[in-house]
Amino acid sequence: MDIIKVSANSRTSAVAGAIAGVIREHKRAEVQAIGAGAVNQALKALVLATGYLKTDEINIVCIPEFVEIQIEDKVRTAIKIVVEPR
Amino acid sequence: MDIIKVSANSRTSAVAGAIAGVIREHKRAEVQAIGAGAVNQALKALVLATGYLKTDEINIVCIPEFVEIQIEDKVRTAIKIVVEPR
Repeated sequence: MDIIKVSANSRTSAVAGAIAGVIREHKRAEVQAIGAGAVNQALKALVLATGYLKTDEINIVCIPEFVEIQIEDKVRTAIKIVVEPR
Repeated sequence: MDIIKVSANSRTSAVAGAIAGVIREHKRAEVQAIGAGAVNQALKALVLATGYLKTDEINIVCIPEFVEIQIEDKVRTAIKIVVEPR
């Protein structure tokens, strides 16, 4: 299962559609964001995805955690949000 | 139960302590943030609070939603994150 990577410029509706699709198929999604702008877009996308999935009677919850990722030899702290049906 | 309001300048450990305290007492907390900086601080605080509460064997999950709030005659969209034990 691929991680859904969100940037500050990501379109929230596109990210939300990706989250909903992965949840429908795999019953679990992982969303990763680095920086305040990206985290904000990720959260907005999660609100939208929650609405999309409610029409399928799937109620999702989020569990955020820190992850260290390496980008061009530098270690940065990202926020990974695990999304699962309740 | 009071809403825990988070700003871009909030200390994440202080917010995390507040979330953990409210969850222990009320089994439910609400965290509100407006703007990318505030949402980012709120998410980081939630990661920390998740760790604090794991030592009490409480596993929390988050459900984000949009709320419209009025600040000085202007309506702004905030993100409210409902926090509950799994």
